[in-house]
Amino acid sequence: MTQKFIFSENPAADLERVIAELAPTSVAVVADVNTAQYVVPLLTAASPAIKAANLITVKAGDLNKTLDAAQSIWRALAQMQADRRSVLVAVGGGMVTDLAGFAAATYMRGIRAVYVPTTLLAAVDASAGGKTGVNFLGLKNMVGTFTEPVAAIISSTFFSTLTPDEVLSGYGEMLKHALLSDAKMLGRLLAFTPAAQASAMLPLVEESVKVKCKFVEGDLREGSKRRALNLGHSAGHAFEELAMKRTAAIPHGFAVAHGCVVALVLSHIHLGFPSDTLHSFAQFVAQHYPLDFTLTCDDYPELLALMHHDKKNTSRQTFNFTLLAEVGKPQIDCHVSEDDVRNALDIYRDLIGI
Amino acid sequence: MTQKFIFSENPAADLERVIAELAPTSVAVVADVNTAQYVVPLLTAASPAIKAANLITVKAGDLNKTLDAAQSIWRALAQMQADRRSVLVAVGGGMVTDLAGFAAATYMRGIRAVYVPTTLLAAVDASAGGKTGVNFLGLKNMVGTFTEPVAAIISSTFFSTLTPDEVLSGYGEMLKHALLSDAKMLGRLLAFTPAAQASAMLPLVEESVKVKCKFVEGDLREGSKRRALNLGHSAGHAFEELAMKRTAAIPHGFAVAHGCVVALVLSHIHLGFPSDTLHSFAQFVAQHYPLDFTLTCDDYPELLALMHHDKKNTSRQTFNFTLLAEVGKPQIDCHVSEDDVRNALDIYRDLIGI
Repeated sequence: MTQKFIFSENPAADLERVIAELAPTSVAVVADVNTAQYVVPLLTAASPAIKAANLITVKAGDLNKTLDAAQSIWRALAQMQADRRSVLVAVGGGMVTDLAGFAAATYMRGIRAVYVPTTLLAAVDASAGGKTGVNFLGLKNMVGTFTEPVAAIISSTFFSTLTPDEVLSGYGEMLKHALLSDAKMLGRLLAFTPAAQASAMLPLVEESVKVKCKFVEGDLREGSKRRALNLGHSAGHAFEELAMKRTAAIPHGFAVAHGCVVALVLSHIHLGFPSDTLHSFAQFVAQHYPLDFTLTCDDYPELLALMHHDKKNTSRQTFNFTLLAEVGKPQIDCHVSEDDVRNALDIYRDLIGI
Repeated sequence: MTQKFIFSENPAADLERVIAELAPTSVAVVADVNTAQYVVPLLTAASPAIKAANLITVKAGDLNKTLDAAQSIWRALAQMQADRRSVLVAVGGGMVTDLAGFAAATYMRGIRAVYVPTTLLAAVDASAGGKTGVNFLGLKNMVGTFTEPVAAIISSTFFSTLTPDEVLSGYGEMLKHALLSDAKMLGRLLAFTPAAQASAMLPLVEESVKVKCKFVEGDLREGSKRRALNLGHSAGHAFEELAMKRTAAIPHGFAVAHGCVVALVLSHIHLGFPSDTLHSFAQFVAQHYPLDFTLTCDDYPELLALMHHDKKNTSRQTFNFTLLAEVGKPQIDCHVSEDDVRNALDIYRDLIGI
C-alpha cells in the first residue's frame, strides 16, 4: 500500500473520486474547529461522500494534540460503528493530520486515512512520510506511529487564506528540501516571494513533496537516509523551544529556516559547503524570516542544552547534525563538538544580523 | 525486520543473548503483578541485562488491558529516558504482550519489543502475528497496531506452573492450527493429553507457531489468507460472550475449541468435510473441554446476535465463517445463512452432548 499524492486544482472533486475508489463502509471527517468552519463546507458542497460523512471536530492548536483528543476520535468512530473498511479523512494543518492519522492508525489496529492538508506546512511536511502522533507529558509526538495515509490531496486553493507567516513557515521546509535536492530548485525558491505568491505555488509544492518522498522511500522508520530530512532541525528545535520560553512560539518553518543557516555554517566549516550559497541562503532567511527575539552568547548554554534534548540526538557527548557537502549532498550523523556549535552560532548571528 | 522465534530450554540465557544482539541504549521489562513476582526473578537470576533493566509492573487481567495501563508504561519509559534504541521486554500472558506490545509500538513511534510469553495461549497465539492493543470503551482490542516484536522466546519451562485450564486453553488454539495444517499434526494432538504433559509440549508448540506464521506471512494486516486463522472464532467469540453474561468467563481456547466444532459441522454440510474427522475432533473437545453452562435452542437468538457483532463480520445479512474443505484446506469468507447456523448448533450440541 503506497501513498498517493494528488496535486489538485479541485480538491473536493478529487477527494470524491479517491473515496469512491476506496469503497469504504463509512467515512469520518476529522477537522479542528477552524477547518470545520472554513474548509469542510467547501468540501461538502462539492463532494457527496463528504456531505454524507460523520464530522468529528477537535480543538485547534498543538496544545490539543493529546491522547484525550485521540480518545475523542476513537470514541466517535466507535459510536458511528466505523469498521476496518471505514475511511478517515483528516482536514487541517499538521496538528490535525498527525492526530487523526494516529487515531486512524490505531483504531481497530488501523483504518485507512486520507489527508487534506490545509496549510502549506502540512502540505510539504506532515502529509508525507507517515509520522503520526500526539504529545504526551508535554513531550512532542511522544506517542505515535509511522503510518502513511492512503492518499494526500494537496491544493494551493487552501493557501490563499493563510497568513504570510503561515506561508513562510511552510516555505521554510521547502527551502530545506531544496537544500537536500539541487541547486536549480534552490535557485527557483530563493528567487520567489512566497508570502506574495502563495496561490501560484503548487508546482513548487509538488517538487518539494517529491524531494521529501525520495528521502522517506525505503526508510520510513528513519533508520538512515531519511534522517537527512533533519537538516536544520537540531538548531531549529532549540530555537523553537527557546522562543517559546522567552517570548512566544515562532512558526516551525521559521525555526527550520534559521536552523538551516546554522547547519550550512557548520557544513561550510566541516565539509567545505560553498560560501556563496551559504551567503545567499542566509540573506534570504534574514530578509524573510525576522525573529522577534534576540540572541546573545549568554543564550548559548541554554541552546546547547536544548539541542542535547532533541530526541534524535542519541549521543550525550557530541552534537549530531545533518550537514551538506554541497546542495543535494547530505551527510547524516556528523558529530560536532560544543565549540564548533558555539562558533557556528557566532557566524550565524553575524550573517543574520542578530 | 522479521520476527525471530526462539524455542528455548533456557529462556534467561537466550534472552540475555537476544538483548546483547539488539545492543539497546536501555531495557525496560513489563510484567504484570504475577509474572513480576514469579517469572521475572527467574530471568534476573540468570540474565544481567534483565537484572539491570527497569521493571514496569501493571495490574493483571484482561480488564486492565486499558489505555490507562498503556499510559503508565509510556510514562515509565519517559521517566527512564528510554529512547528509540531502547528495548522493551514483555513477560507474561497475552494481556501483557498485547498491552506492552502496543506501548512499544507507539512510544516515540515505535521501539523494539521482545516477548517472553509465560502461558501456552500467549506462546502459540499472542506471540506470533503482531496483533497489539488495548480494550477501549469495553470493546476488545479496539485500539492497537499490527506490529511484530523483534523476537519471541518461547519456553515450556514456564508451563509447568499453569493450571490445567490454562494449558487446555492454549491447546485449543493449537487444535485450530492443526486443523488448518495437516491430518498428521491433528492426529498427534488428538493423541496427546495436554493437561498432563504440558512440560513435554515444546516440539508441538513449535510446530503450532509455525502454522500460525505461515498464515500471517505476507498478510499481517489480515486482508485475506490470514483470516483463515479465524477458524472457530465466529462461534467461539459468541460462546465466550454468552458465558461471560451467564455464569463466568470461560478460557479463550475453550471457546475456540467449541467454535471449531461448530465450524467443522458447517464445513461438513457445505464443503463435505470428512465426517470421521469431525467426530473424532468433537469427541476430543467433549472429553477435554467441559463447559459449565448449558445451551438450549432458546439461546440461539442471543448467540446469533453476538456472532453478528464480531468485528470481522462485515456483512449484516449472512454470517461469515472460515470453513474447511478438509484438514489443511481452509476457505475464508464462506457466507452461511441463519438457518444453517441454527442447524449446525443443533448438531454441535448432539456431538458434544449438551
